[in-house]
Amino acid sequence: MSKVLVLPGDGIGPEIVDEAVKVLNVAKQKFGLDVELDEALVGGAAVDAEGDPLPEGTLEKARAADAILFGSIGGPKWDAIERGKRPERGLLRLRSSLGLFANLRPAILFPQLADASSLKPEVVSGLDILIVRELTGGIYFGQPRGIKEENGERVGFNTYVYTESEMRRIAKVAFELAMKRDKRVCSVDKANVLEVTELWKEVVTEEAKAYPEIELSHMYVDNAAMQLVRAPKQFDVIVTGNLFGDILSDEAAMLTGSIGMLPSASLDENRKGLYEPCHGSAPDIAGQGTANPLATIMSLAMLMRYSLERGDVADAIEAAVERVLDQGLRTADIYTEGTRKVGTEEMGNAVAEAL
Amino acid sequence: MSKVLVLPGDGIGPEIVDEAVKVLNVAKQKFGLDVELDEALVGGAAVDAEGDPLPEGTLEKARAADAILFGSIGGPKWDAIERGKRPERGLLRLRSSLGLFANLRPAILFPQLADASSLKPEVVSGLDILIVRELTGGIYFGQPRGIKEENGERVGFNTYVYTESEMRRIAKVAFELAMKRDKRVCSVDKANVLEVTELWKEVVTEEAKAYPEIELSHMYVDNAAMQLVRAPKQFDVIVTGNLFGDILSDEAAMLTGSIGMLPSASLDENRKGLYEPCHGSAPDIAGQGTANPLATIMSLAMLMRYSLERGDVADAIEAAVERVLDQGLRTADIYTEGTRKVGTEEMGNAVAEAL
Ligand SMILES: CC(C)[C@H](C(=O)O)[C@@H](O)C(=O)O
Ligand SMILES: CC(C)[C@H](C(=O)O)[C@@H](O)C(=O)O
Repeated sequence: MSKVLVLPGDGIGPEIVDEAVKVLNVAKQKFGLDVELDEALVGGAAVDAEGDPLPEGTLEKARAADAILFGSIGGPKWDAIERGKRPERGLLRLRSSLGLFANLRPAILFPQLADASSLKPEVVSGLDILIVRELTGGIYFGQPRGIKEENGERVGFNTYVYTESEMRRIAKVAFELAMKRDKRVCSVDKANVLEVTELWKEVVTEEAKAYPEIELSHMYVDNAAMQLVRAPKQFDVIVTGNLFGDILSDEAAMLTGSIGMLPSASLDENRKGLYEPCHGSAPDIAGQGTANPLATIMSLAMLMRYSLERGDVADAIEAAVERVLDQGLRTADIYTEGTRKVGTEEMGNAVAEAL
Repeated sequence: MSKVLVLPGDGIGPEIVDEAVKVLNVAKQKFGLDVELDEALVGGAAVDAEGDPLPEGTLEKARAADAILFGSIGGPKWDAIERGKRPERGLLRLRSSLGLFANLRPAILFPQLADASSLKPEVVSGLDILIVRELTGGIYFGQPRGIKEENGERVGFNTYVYTESEMRRIAKVAFELAMKRDKRVCSVDKANVLEVTELWKEVVTEEAKAYPEIELSHMYVDNAAMQLVRAPKQFDVIVTGNLFGDILSDEAAMLTGSIGMLPSASLDENRKGLYEPCHGSAPDIAGQGTANPLATIMSLAMLMRYSLERGDVADAIEAAVERVLDQGLRTADIYTEGTRKVGTEEMGNAVAEAL
């Protein structure tokens, strides 16, 4: 029996997660999966109910689960509250407490949605990049950090730090994943300026020796940000630290023009994982039933593939999404003339049906 | 009398700087400018000659100058030498020693080169963004930094730090520049995770009170990296720290598809400045006479505008560049069918002629 914890969160989170759960229930029946579902509060919703973006009860359930299906968190309502209680801090603590160090962010262009990209079709058609971002270290978690008073003025400071073993284990994940793809890994650093990434480059290079078939390259982060715009198809797998990964994965996702389609997985050492859409909580359209649930449904597919080791179910879910796109169904964010505009629920139903 | 120091540097640096100096000499005559030129070594060339990427003599000349025209530095030849002697360190020390804290990086689409962009024409036509990047602080210069041994393994670390006054002065530069443009400033941070940028956001907001006409907005760096791809024309002036500015300015430059065209200025408190093309030293084509000198010539225009306070000369140089583009002359990097391919020198001559 596998335990899946559902954390809908804030904004459009609950709506889109509902549709993914609908698809999960169909998959359970069809494939005879033994999956037990539970649900808990996280983010702003948890702040409102219990004064903490990651209540102890939620963390306990998360620890007990084999996988977590996550919606999205945050919104203007919680912008003004004290630092430690902001919704994002709940997500950061969850990643860190569960040791979810490997963040997988695919940037894939769906041929049905090629028009949505702001890039020329020839630059992005067939795009299929996997960004592997380190998620529990680096400047996100480095100590010391804070705002202090010095010489009569305020000074803000954070620490960008990585240990050799943190670097090694994320490099390994990238190489393993690349072995199942085009066997090319580009490690992104700023080794010409930052010592921490100088060590990163060295350690990744050492680790690559165990993968003689992998073609490893190195790129400075500023150049990577350029190359993603200039010729994104040159990349297969990109591996980088927490902050650079945050920036580059969002940039890469946007190359496809349909960030409402892109899933992500955050894995620990034992394939336990948290699965969430790449997009945010979109408070402006929350509750209207217009949000695109496909990124969350694609995240469910990743959950099947990585945590439940059911690649067959993952394939079936992804195929169902493709079929619905082929039928011309589109939520507002990916709508173009000549297609049929549908709401969140109708889209979810269509995928469940197609499955 | 104004003193301009020329620092050609490495790779294509000397070739492109030669053409800019040619244009400068024509401008001197035409506008009766009283400018004295000097030259010195920097980067790999200085390492080879004196064992230091920024020799004392070069720094002295730089201190004495009113403005510096800089080519480019670095190349594989110097990749393996010890950290402190790498060409890039010379540039970083120069920026820091002269207090060149305000880096201005325009990302402008030349209508003649609209095809070169990898983005759809409607997304980038008319693009005109100015990125104001803090250049002498942040994680580039923060202490402590290094690689140490801890619990039997190596640990790399850097410090991201800004004082209130550093933040204030760069915000002021951005607001002043925006007042002469569309009066919109977007400050980029990662305030939901990093305390140093939380303070950044606060200080920029305070500083904005002195500019009631300015429309100030804030954006997380990951979102900014996305928005630059999705809808870059939403931006007027972007202000941000050293590292985020490095990444976003390169991304923005690449939106235009012709990074060989883009200049930059690095200014101190008194309008003394260092002017350099956005592109690198391109060792692969160095010495072949094919490099594009226009970014360096456009940097000369910025030098006239900011350090010599001769906006009229700057306008004339920029107009000369436009005229040459209108005539259909193109170096290899911006060549498209139907235009005339020329080398570095022919391009420089054409601009000098047009002026
Ligand atoms: C919400 C925020 C803390 C988070 C991050 O920066 O990691 C988000 O941008 C992401 O990429 O998942
Ligand atoms: C060469 C390097 C140190 C430099 C930087 O990172 O500042 C360059 O990328 C730039 O943007 O001018």
